[in-house]
Amino acid sequence: MDEFDLIETYFTWENSSSRADSEDTIAVSVGDDAAVLNIPPNTQLVTSTDTLVSGVHFPENTSAEAIGHKALAVNLSDLAAMGAKPAWFTLALTLPEIDYDWLREFSRGLKKLAQQFQIALVGGDTTRGPLTISIQVMGIVDNNQALLRSGAIAGDKVYVTGTLGDAAAGLDSVIKNLNLSEDDKDYCEQRLNYPQPRLLESDTIRDYATSCIDISDGLLQDITHILKASNKGAELDLSSIPLSQALSKIDKNQSLGYALSGGDDYELLFTIPSEAESVFLEKMQKPGYQITCIGVINELYGSLVDTEGNNLMSKGYTHFSGKAFR
Amino acid sequence: MDEFDLIETYFTWENSSSRADSEDTIAVSVGDDAAVLNIPPNTQLVTSTDTLVSGVHFPENTSAEAIGHKALAVNLSDLAAMGAKPAWFTLALTLPEIDYDWLREFSRGLKKLAQQFQIALVGGDTTRGPLTISIQVMGIVDNNQALLRSGAIAGDKVYVTGTLGDAAAGLDSVIKNLNLSEDDKDYCEQRLNYPQPRLLESDTIRDYATSCIDISDGLLQDITHILKASNKGAELDLSSIPLSQALSKIDKNQSLGYALSGGDDYELLFTIPSEAESVFLEKMQKPGYQITCIGVINELYGSLVDTEGNNLMSKGYTHFSGKAFR
Repeated sequence: MDEFDLIETYFTWENSSSRADSEDTIAVSVGDDAAVLNIPPNTQLVTSTDTLVSGVHFPENTSAEAIGHKALAVNLSDLAAMGAKPAWFTLALTLPEIDYDWLREFSRGLKKLAQQFQIALVGGDTTRGPLTISIQVMGIVDNNQALLRSGAIAGDKVYVTGTLGDAAAGLDSVIKNLNLSEDDKDYCEQRLNYPQPRLLESDTIRDYATSCIDISDGLLQDITHILKASNKGAELDLSSIPLSQALSKIDKNQSLGYALSGGDDYELLFTIPSEAESVFLEKMQKPGYQITCIGVINELYGSLVDTEGNNLMSKGYTHFSGKAFR
Repeated sequence: MDEFDLIETYFTWENSSSRADSEDTIAVSVGDDAAVLNIPPNTQLVTSTDTLVSGVHFPENTSAEAIGHKALAVNLSDLAAMGAKPAWFTLALTLPEIDYDWLREFSRGLKKLAQQFQIALVGGDTTRGPLTISIQVMGIVDNNQALLRSGAIAGDKVYVTGTLGDAAAGLDSVIKNLNLSEDDKDYCEQRLNYPQPRLLESDTIRDYATSCIDISDGLLQDITHILKASNKGAELDLSSIPLSQALSKIDKNQSLGYALSGGDDYELLFTIPSEAESVFLEKMQKPGYQITCIGVINELYGSLVDTEGNNLMSKGYTHFSGKAFR
């Protein structure tokens, strides 16, 4: 089976028919030297790449289906952070050997998520070597509507989607550093292996937020990127950090550590001007959407404190786990 | 040094000022969750990805500068094969460790080629793991002007750029399977490590060719992709296959093996309608351009023969080397 057959067998599927226009944007797909794509008028191309390496970004015993899901999910999360609509992606897949079972599972995880968010695989490269998956996603956004890290303004409220820290707890559970009940273990490992890119939420957030980033390295790390790009500071109310039921049951300091610095959340962190807040909250009243205000932006450049004024970067939360695989 | 610093230090450079419009196409570059890019009106996006794995695509002792060059060159070659102009690229770089000397050399090779062909680095991901480089290039082409594999017509002349087989001989020389004079060794290893994407040639070829592909897996393998996509056959005149001076000196069968099946040439293989041939040849009369007619397309689907009617796919040329690293 050569590369071409491999792509035909495992990486060719019908794209969702519910978005007929997505087909029209592909002039040439897999099978030539490159894909040829049509960018709709008055839109910009948004593109990002993320790599997963076995044993670094996920434990070696992670299921192939989860790897397929996660490799695309972490990239889609970047599009969500920009407020972009997914359009196409390419896959660079490096495999130690051709393992048909593994490929079937991997492509199942990839395909399911690709179809869910109507993103089309338009090219790729399969090579032999240590298991590494690089995906580049391409999305579109109306001209000048992309959500950047640099727009936060003093007085803006800091929001996050979902709950934080679950994936880091899931990883600690996998590597036996944390004991959880069977149900909580399943929940946290699911959050670790099957992160859900917040693309639906992003579609509304884009119209109200002044800045946005996805939380991949932990809340404290990632909010720093917004503060740096926006030349601002922030005060966070740690008591309002959203925790799942599973994380509410463990030691409070430990759960907060996961939530602040665990990483692999793939939730969105964004800032909303206070005058837009009530309309925004109303628009976000949709089934399954969860957002929480966790703080406020201020003019104190580089300052990141809790409500008692403690410097959050020096509180040692960054020593928490989730970094075993990175 | 975190990822951000690493990118600032090694992967940030001035893009060439001779093409001011390329700067205008970048709304957001490295440093946000994704790049935001402007596609010029009436053009299509052309994108492709290629991965190089240490010990698979290049010997482990290859210089970092050559790796940086080659990782981009093989991708630019795909844009050349489509007749596209380079615009932007992303880099997914997986490194076993942070080695500043290696990074400096790698980025030097990458930057030199990027500046030569005015392609801007707009995003990337650096991760820890076995040395793997995935680059995705993005280029633009005027609407419906991309060169495909599928347009060859019976009677079209088959052309190649440059000379074939040098890189495969270079690889055999590196791994001590081939003895060459010092000069010829240098020449062939240069061709192996520093392939030149045929983007300048492609800019003219695009206006005349009916099909095009770049030769990465060897002439016989790659012409088959054109024949399959175009539903045609071809007759090749093996005596006209262009060989370098270095390859002319070695055993005739061996040099032909390298040229037909060696791989890693990154020359263009394309078809020109016979009625357009004389004008095309005139346009290609430029310093440094080398093209050679090596055969003709016919209606015999799947047939690939020499001028005596011998089936070229069964002649065993595919057993030749160049495949040690792939």
